[in-house]
Amino acid sequence: MDRVADFPAIPSGWAYLDTAATSQKPQVVVDAITRGYGETYATVHRGVYQRSADMTLAYEAARHRVAGFIGGKADEIVFVRGATEGINLVAHCWAAANLKSGDRIMLSMLEHHSNIVPWQMAAERIGAAIDVIPLTTDQRIDLDAMAAMITPAHKLVALAHVSNVLGSVLDAKRATEIAHSVGAKILIDGCQSVPRMSVDVAGIGCDFYVFSGHKLYGPTGIGVLWGRAELLDTMPPYQGGGSMIDRVSFEKTTYAPPPGRFEAGTPHIVGALGLHAAIDYVESIGLDAIHAHETALVRDTRAALSQLNSVRLFGPEDSAGIVSFAIEGVHPHDVATILDEERVAIRAGHHCAQPLMAALGVEATARASFGVYNVPQDVAALVRGIERVTRIFG
Amino acid sequence: MDRVADFPAIPSGWAYLDTAATSQKPQVVVDAITRGYGETYATVHRGVYQRSADMTLAYEAARHRVAGFIGGKADEIVFVRGATEGINLVAHCWAAANLKSGDRIMLSMLEHHSNIVPWQMAAERIGAAIDVIPLTTDQRIDLDAMAAMITPAHKLVALAHVSNVLGSVLDAKRATEIAHSVGAKILIDGCQSVPRMSVDVAGIGCDFYVFSGHKLYGPTGIGVLWGRAELLDTMPPYQGGGSMIDRVSFEKTTYAPPPGRFEAGTPHIVGALGLHAAIDYVESIGLDAIHAHETALVRDTRAALSQLNSVRLFGPEDSAGIVSFAIEGVHPHDVATILDEERVAIRAGHHCAQPLMAALGVEATARASFGVYNVPQDVAALVRGIERVTRIFG
Repeated sequence: MDRVADFPAIPSGWAYLDTAATSQKPQVVVDAITRGYGETYATVHRGVYQRSADMTLAYEAARHRVAGFIGGKADEIVFVRGATEGINLVAHCWAAANLKSGDRIMLSMLEHHSNIVPWQMAAERIGAAIDVIPLTTDQRIDLDAMAAMITPAHKLVALAHVSNVLGSVLDAKRATEIAHSVGAKILIDGCQSVPRMSVDVAGIGCDFYVFSGHKLYGPTGIGVLWGRAELLDTMPPYQGGGSMIDRVSFEKTTYAPPPGRFEAGTPHIVGALGLHAAIDYVESIGLDAIHAHETALVRDTRAALSQLNSVRLFGPEDSAGIVSFAIEGVHPHDVATILDEERVAIRAGHHCAQPLMAALGVEATARASFGVYNVPQDVAALVRGIERVTRIFG
Repeated sequence: MDRVADFPAIPSGWAYLDTAATSQKPQVVVDAITRGYGETYATVHRGVYQRSADMTLAYEAARHRVAGFIGGKADEIVFVRGATEGINLVAHCWAAANLKSGDRIMLSMLEHHSNIVPWQMAAERIGAAIDVIPLTTDQRIDLDAMAAMITPAHKLVALAHVSNVLGSVLDAKRATEIAHSVGAKILIDGCQSVPRMSVDVAGIGCDFYVFSGHKLYGPTGIGVLWGRAELLDTMPPYQGGGSMIDRVSFEKTTYAPPPGRFEAGTPHIVGALGLHAAIDYVESIGLDAIHAHETALVRDTRAALSQLNSVRLFGPEDSAGIVSFAIEGVHPHDVATILDEERVAIRAGHHCAQPLMAALGVEATARASFGVYNVPQDVAALVRGIERVTRIFG
């Protein structure tokens, strides 16, 4: 797979290995956005004139496209700013209607802050408690431990489908079965899975699923919350404003059914169009092909780095597209800075996963993450750069 | 002023008169967005590599540009999805820390649903009450009535700077003085003012100010909440996630100072860049020139329509860029449909202001609203179209 020619912002010879933070955009996505603003632009849902009616169709077509992409129904798709907002929406609205003091929420040790802090805020508001599933020795969420820990007091479980630090893949179907065995609902954070593997929420059987457009080769400022219709139906609104209402008066305001109830105000119209184009793009390649491509790059990277004595690798061998590592005696920021001089872009830091860093016994890691545009030469450049780091600091 | 050539999505002969819903985009804004995705794209705040550091500078430069544009400081600028989210953020976070049962909130009869429903939700949560300022006979917010109604029990006032239905302009400085006379804070909804007139929050003296990028010739999915630093400082976070934290652990999480505290997750990076370009664009023309241009178009429209016996005009004579009207015996939707056949795009409906519709004694109005691209020929086309409507239904 050599898709780099599709990506206008990747100059020749630049190894962009920060796709887990955000992906670069193919020309077809840039074109869809340019067309949305520069040819077909209008508001949605309100205009009587043809241009606005057409834009409404395009916006709703994007919703249908997303639904088909992950195996949900269109009226179960809520457009949000990103996965972070999707989780906050559930932590606010579902929790407000369904959690009470003394209830328990279950997370894991490897969650991104966006799948920790909203639950801490909800738990504090409601008087609920949080339990944390530990990791296995090969750094996956330990589902045996989950099964042993979970009780009927647990009303909600929220887990990452793919760890943004380790790349470890959750058995989401089994996690869902464990959650449901005690009657708990489960939210899956799909930020790192949706761009890297085929996802089917119906097959998983989960209750909520969230992801961000900008990590899926799409625009910034748009993401998706999928929720089962019967759950969304019972949830109070999140933000108040235009489009989410049925009827407003100062005496009594009533709300629209989902998904409109959760989309107050003028939406990120062109963001939805860009996300549609991004889904078309990844499906034209095929998620299975993308997954195979990225796991091969991970395998080669891990094989090469495991030859270097001073390099410590994190995560399981079958990591999905993400490799975190540390170099003995070198701060990850220095690793990233030297690699940048070699035209290799990686991330260094806590990756918004400070509890995981604490569990790994480090302040930070260096992280290389792959996308459809990466090629074996990028792995070679990464390895050459790391060899240079070890020479400089050796 | 003839700026239509700057706008690629406005074909020759199309009178786009729905700018109060959303504005069309100048080529310079489309180009800034295309460049953001297609040349310079990277994440912000986190990357060690040069591309990400550059994008962080560009994102923060947009924040500084917004601050200069409305007379605030950069660390008082919170990027939100739009004005709706900005109001919800204040209604949630400021109200949570500052409102208690029995307190009162003051709104006006002409507010957009986005400046009603969030306060109803907050009032219901907290046990506060809402009072509604009536309109003057020429359909402005009645500040004399406000001064007579307000009491020390009123902790917050939220008013539109320019009505999205009537175009009436609030004396925001006087409204602020009245609010402050009893110690209340005041939020101004600047959705329709920021694109139409010069705004200086320091000169007004208000406490919060919100607007949407997409009504200011900028991208969808981005807007601004400005708040006084000392108020933002004391407010709890809105959404939890990456970037808004200081330190996360399962035992204790602490939060970043504003504005970061209120920007959880990867922001709408390219939206901020597009908004920056939009502000450059309107300032290159000059807000005073835009205001003069739009009020002249309003004057001509009102003069022509007042010649037609069956047309009822709403709003004051000096309306800022917006004209609402009704034609006797014709539903506004039919007006808009016939005008669409004449290549004139207006909006018909309740304009997300059902309480105002009730006060006006109508279910809906037809609304023409102007932007920098409109020319006298657009007014002529509108008037011709309305004459045709009156002939068809006459």
